[in-house]
Parts: sequence; C-alpha cells; structure tokens
Amino acid sequence: MEARIPTVDEVPSADVTPKLAPEYVLELVRNARSASTRMASLSTTIKDRALMAMADGLVAKADDILAANERDLDAFGSSKEKQAMADRLRLTPERIEAMAAGIREIVGLVDPVGQTLNMRRRPNGMQVGRVRVPIGVIGIIYESRPNVTADSAALCLKSGNVCVLRGGSEAIHSNTAIAAILSDASEQAGVPPGSITFIDRTERDVVAELLKQDQYIDLIIPRGGESLMKTVTEQSRIPVIKHDKGVCHVYIDADADVAMATSIAVNAKVQRPSTCNAMETLLVHQNSARPVLPELVNALVAAGVEVRGCAKTVSLCPEAKPAAEDDYGREFLSLTLAVKVVKSVDEAMEHIARYGSRHTEAIVTKDYGRAMRFLREVDAGAVLVNASTRLNDGNQFGLGAEIGISTTRIHARGPMGLEELTCSKFVVFGSGQIRE
Amino acid sequence: MEARIPTVDEVPSADVTPKLAPEYVLELVRNARSASTRMASLSTTIKDRALMAMADGLVAKADDILAANERDLDAFGSSKEKQAMADRLRLTPERIEAMAAGIREIVGLVDPVGQTLNMRRRPNGMQVGRVRVPIGVIGIIYESRPNVTADSAALCLKSGNVCVLRGGSEAIHSNTAIAAILSDASEQAGVPPGSITFIDRTERDVVAELLKQDQYIDLIIPRGGESLMKTVTEQSRIPVIKHDKGVCHVYIDADADVAMATSIAVNAKVQRPSTCNAMETLLVHQNSARPVLPELVNALVAAGVEVRGCAKTVSLCPEAKPAAEDDYGREFLSLTLAVKVVKSVDEAMEHIARYGSRHTEAIVTKDYGRAMRFLREVDAGAVLVNASTRLNDGNQFGLGAEIGISTTRIHARGPMGLEELTCSKFVVFGSGQIRE
Repeated sequence: MEARIPTVDEVPSADVTPKLAPEYVLELVRNARSASTRMASLSTTIKDRALMAMADGLVAKADDILAANERDLDAFGSSKEKQAMADRLRLTPERIEAMAAGIREIVGLVDPVGQTLNMRRRPNGMQVGRVRVPIGVIGIIYESRPNVTADSAALCLKSGNVCVLRGGSEAIHSNTAIAAILSDASEQAGVPPGSITFIDRTERDVVAELLKQDQYIDLIIPRGGESLMKTVTEQSRIPVIKHDKGVCHVYIDADADVAMATSIAVNAKVQRPSTCNAMETLLVHQNSARPVLPELVNALVAAGVEVRGCAKTVSLCPEAKPAAEDDYGREFLSLTLAVKVVKSVDEAMEHIARYGSRHTEAIVTKDYGRAMRFLREVDAGAVLVNASTRLNDGNQFGLGAEIGISTTRIHARGPMGLEELTCSKFVVFGSGQIRE
Repeated sequence: MEARIPTVDEVPSADVTPKLAPEYVLELVRNARSASTRMASLSTTIKDRALMAMADGLVAKADDILAANERDLDAFGSSKEKQAMADRLRLTPERIEAMAAGIREIVGLVDPVGQTLNMRRRPNGMQVGRVRVPIGVIGIIYESRPNVTADSAALCLKSGNVCVLRGGSEAIHSNTAIAAILSDASEQAGVPPGSITFIDRTERDVVAELLKQDQYIDLIIPRGGESLMKTVTEQSRIPVIKHDKGVCHVYIDADADVAMATSIAVNAKVQRPSTCNAMETLLVHQNSARPVLPELVNALVAAGVEVRGCAKTVSLCPEAKPAAEDDYGREFLSLTLAVKVVKSVDEAMEHIARYGSRHTEAIVTKDYGRAMRFLREVDAGAVLVNASTRLNDGNQFGLGAEIGISTTRIHARGPMGLEELTCSKFVVFGSGQIRE
C-alpha cells in the first residue's frame, strides 16, 4: 500500500517535503512496475467492475473534488487574461457527472487484451500469431483539464496498463482528489495498488526524474504546450508518443460546392476552436474565392471569428483584417483564422507541407483526381475529403474513447484508443519444430 | 547529387576532414529528408527495378567490395582473440552472392505502401480507414556484419523509406563500397539521390549529432552492443526501436518428451549460437532432470558446448562445470550454456522474469494447462511452445525478410519486416460531414 495516493490534506507542502525528487519518483515507479504484472492479467470482469466503482466514486465524492477545485481556482486567480484558462480548470457537478459518464462509456468498449491477430500455419506446421498485451507502465504528463486524470486512468486500466499520472500544477488539488478517489475505488474492486499512480508533487525536477526511469516505465505520453514537448523530447530515455500541436488546414478547391465548403469551414473553426483538430488556416483556390469567400467570411465573423486574410481575401471581404506572415503556421487555439487564396492544389499542398504540423488536413472538392492526389500526397495523421477536420477523433473514427491524438509517426498515429494502448507478442504453437 | 556516396578512395582521412561533425551530418540528413517525399510515392515497379539493379551491382562490382574488405581486415588484425570477429567481418564471393540473393528476395515481397486497413463506414456516412505509408527517414546504427548495409538499404527502399546508415568503424571500407554501389544502382533506376545515405565518417560525435536530428530523421534503429544501446537511449531525441540483446531460455517441463526436448534444446543452442534468439540458459523441471539431462548434456558437449550447471546438473552430468551466479542472465553469444534445475513452472517463469531480456522464451511440455500459462504469463517478444527459440525470425514467422528483431515494446515487437517499416495515416472519404 506504499503507493496509496494521499488525500488532498495530506499533500506535503513544499517546505516539509520529506524526500528528494529522485527518491520520491523511484519509489512510485517501482510500485507502479510491480503492479503491472498482475494488472496485465486482470480479467475484463474485474476491470469493468473497477471502472464502474471509479465512476460511482467520482459522483459520490463530488463535494471533495469541488472543494479541492476551489483551492486550485483560488490559487490560480481570476484576472481577465486568465479567464479562459480558469474556465477550463473549473469543475462543476455537471462536469464531474460527465467525467463519470466518460468512464462508464469505457466499460462498454471491447477489452483489447488477449486478442489474437493473424494466426497462421507456417510450412513447418507451427502456428504463429500475435496476441495483444498491455504496454505495461505508461507515464502521462499533461497540462490540460482535470478530466484528463479520469480519462487517462480509465483508458489505461481497461487496456491493462498501469498509469503514472503527472498533471499541471494549476490543477494539483483537483487532480490529487480525483486520482485518490479513482485509486481507492479501483483497489476495492480488486485492482492492484499502484495501478493508478499519481505524482502529487509539482516541482519541475520530478518530471526530469520521471523521464529517466526506462527500467520502470515503458511509454511516456506528453500532452501539452511547446515547452513540455521540448523537455520530453530532449530528456526522455523512455519511448515517447507525443500529443503535439495541430496546425490544421481546410483547402477549398476550384469549383467546390459553396454550401458544403461553408459548412465544413465554419464547423472546422467554430465548433470547438481550442482543440488540436480545429482549423487554423483556410486555403481557397482562386476560382472559388469570389463565389465562396464573402459569404463564408460573413458566417465566420458572425460566429465571432477574427479573420486575417491575404491581400485577395481582404479585397473580397471587408470584414477581414490583413494577415501577417507569421499568422500562417500558427496554432491560434481560439476564434482567430488565417485565410489565403492559392493558385492551385499544388500551391495548397506546398503551403500545407511548409506550414502544417502533419496533424489533420482536409480538402473540399468535387474533383475525383484532386481528391485522390490530396489523400495520397498530403502527409498528416488524418487526411479528409469533404469532411470537417474536427472529425479526426477516436469516437468519430470508431475507435471508441481516445487518450488523445498522437503526432508521433510510429506505433499510433492519429487518435489513440484502447487498441493503440496495447502492444503485441508473438505466440507459437509448435509440435517440436526446430530451425533447419 | 550532393548526397552522392564517395567511393572508397574518396573517403577523407581524418586529418583532412573538411567539415565539423554537425555540419557534415546536417547536410546529409537534409538531403535524406528532401529525398523522402519523392521516395514515399515511388511506384513498386521502380522500387523493384532498383532492387534488381542493386543486387546486380553488388555481384558485378564484387572485386571492389573484396578489395575494400581486405583493407578493413588488414586494419582489424588477426590476433587469436579477434578471429571470430574477423570471420564475421570477412566477405567472400559467396557472401556477396548471398547479399545479392537477399535483395532479390525482397523484390518478391508485397509492397506494403498504400495498403488500406479497416476501411469502415461510420454512422454519419463517412468512410474511414488507415493507409500504410512509409515512416520517412530511418537512421540505422549498427555494428554488425557488412551485409547489414545491403539488407537495411533494400528493406528501407522497398518500404518507401529513406535510410541513413551508420555502420561500425571496423567495416568502414566494406560498408562504404557496398553503399556506393547500392546508391548508384538505385539512382540509375530512378530512386531519388540521397535515398540511401551512408555516413562515411567514423567519429563518435557523428552519432551524437545524428541523434539530435529529430527534424530530419523519423526513427532510429540501433543494432549492437550495450554501449551503443546506452548512447542511443540517453541521447536520442528521435523515436528509437531497439534491437537489443537476447537472453533466451528454454524450459523443459515435467514429463516432457525426451527426444523433443533434446532436439529443441540442441537446436536452440547450437544451430547459430551468435544470434540474439539462441538459447543462453536451459531450465529443466526436477522431474525431467534425470530422464533428460544426461543425454542432452552429452549431445551438447558433443556439439562443442561448454555446459555450466547448478549443483543438481553437475551431479547428474559429469561433463558439466559448476555455474557461477552471473552465468544466469548472461548473453554468451557463443557455445556456452547455463543450466538450472527448477522445482516448478512457477520457478521457471520467475527465473525468466528475473534474468531474461524479454526477447524469446520457449517451453517444452505435454501439459495443456502449463503450455497456456506459459504463453499467457511470460512477457517476451515471442513465446513458443514446443519449438526452438531460433524460429523467432521474420522469415520463419512469415513476415518475409526482416531488418532485425525489435526489443522495444511499441510499434514493432519481435521480427521487424516490411510492414513494420511503415506507419499509417487515416483517410476519410466524406460527403460534407461535420462534427455535431
């Protein structure tokens, strides 16, 4: 029980910290590792029972979570420029209900562990196949909303992985409270202690220590801003799957359907502008500029979007402001949009290759050839024809709930669901075969 | 043509080196990156034609390769303790023919690029699937035989990847000659220059520089000893798939078939002892010790194996020497074997978990329950029942030729063939879908 998550009131304050960061981290990750063997062979029944208990626990102890969240909000402050962030940090009874609902949804997903893939009989008579197994211990370093704590713990548990969670310091009390409830509930349902390990200290050197533990952690998933990505890239000895930024484009081709182009572009920008798969730059073929842009920019401005366009865009749309060069390739994560008129699909694809972050790219077109070229030649985790970039999502793509959208090319590229939280081992059913 | 591989005689000697390592590496990897876009969309026809030309080139210019190899052998020396290594370094006309045959075999394998997986129709009507695409630029750092240069270049080319090859200094002339032939032949067949990039400088800081190039290299594959693995783990900012050591066990269960146990154990040790999937430790259930061990140790000793056993083994087999504690968990890579008698399958699995390297593990048993437990509970890239560890191999498992056996859990675990040298992107065929 050494790895038990302390309750909020037990969190040591900085000046009575009893252990140095290396010692503290080592104890936690060793516990996590030793939980991972039992965790890997836990039955789906026990895992699902634990998930239900975790969801129930969050709802039953909502008041504790709200009190902890109040402490975070007080510490965070409420100046005007912090309002958007404070709103993301804020928990309400409804948001806690939504967290619990998210966990219950994972109960309904198929357990990937033990699935056998491509079993085949080889010429020498042996049967060879791959079996999905948990990755092991997954370290998740995040800066986002407190619900990431619940989502990550639940997805890791269902896929048989032990998680080591390290949230942002601004949400430390909320995350500590949530993790303690999840950990207690899961242990009571039979999950080994340490399976949901939460790092309750916020010093920077704790992350540095964590990134050295390649003996105990199998994978690091960082979710956050540029500085976190840089730290992890430079320091991690553990394999990393990044959830990095999305500079996503929608390209409206020549002769595109005006209504479809407008609908997709508005959705890609406005439906939830703070997400990594929201559109940041709109590219419009010059033949579509006049038929599409004035009405589209109107609709965007009506939805609260600040449009920054190239000279041509500004000349067609009086509401648009002139774009600066560095507006292209920028991840606004807000209701600001860069717009550029281009001469051809080639110029659009060159722009995307130069400024995009290889996350999500979409074309709106009626032309078969250009649709196929765009799909084939654009290098991104997801490439869409006649659909909104916002659809690049685990649920929308049919993978179920996701832990995020990977921007790493290997292992899992794009939405990362339960299957992507597993790896495989080869199994061989032989009858005495040897190598000739 | 800046990335053209110099011929052997053009290799700059250390004291006239014109560029610092960072500058030298940066120029090469930039060229590699700029080749990768065209490389990714090369047709299978052109790639196969290039492979045939590469194979023909090696055979046609065998004399150049042999001359370069002679220089490496001269520099390496021929002291007695170096003989095994010198033998691995040595090329002969037959070995060059075998390299060419290996490349021609890859022509016959299915091109994985463009394969579509799991295309499905979502409730909103859009079709979503994954398409295999090349990983991009793959850096391969190896210390092995010169044939790795040819194998790696050919596998990367067929899978649409650009490779940046860095071989061991002891084989620098051989590797330079081979890479130059492969690069020239492939370019003449229409492969973009820079697609087979060879690092012809042997300073250590060249590797350090390479490992920083996460802008230009997508994946690093190290193949070699402990010191190389450590350098790469600690320094790489690029995702790594390791081909690390194999401390592989064969466990002979209670009441195992004596003939099968003997045949598998001898094969696992003797057939090619210098490979990562050869057996290093034999575990024998105490009930099988008396019926199996004396005859088996006899057979092993007859095949030239030095057997180092526990007290029980030594008492049953006069040819066995007593094992030291650190003989367990050791990768001999030679005709030396540690043997231990255990009380149960549990003790065997505990031994494997403690001393094994999670590479390849085998059980010889007649018991269904223990076979299933071993398959389920042993954590390794490949777990085999009643088959030799030596069968853990891309060809044997039906993946075709392999670039090696990955010991990294994510992306590709176990033999890494052409499919494992690709990643995927999601493609969406929509008709105006937006996120609700």
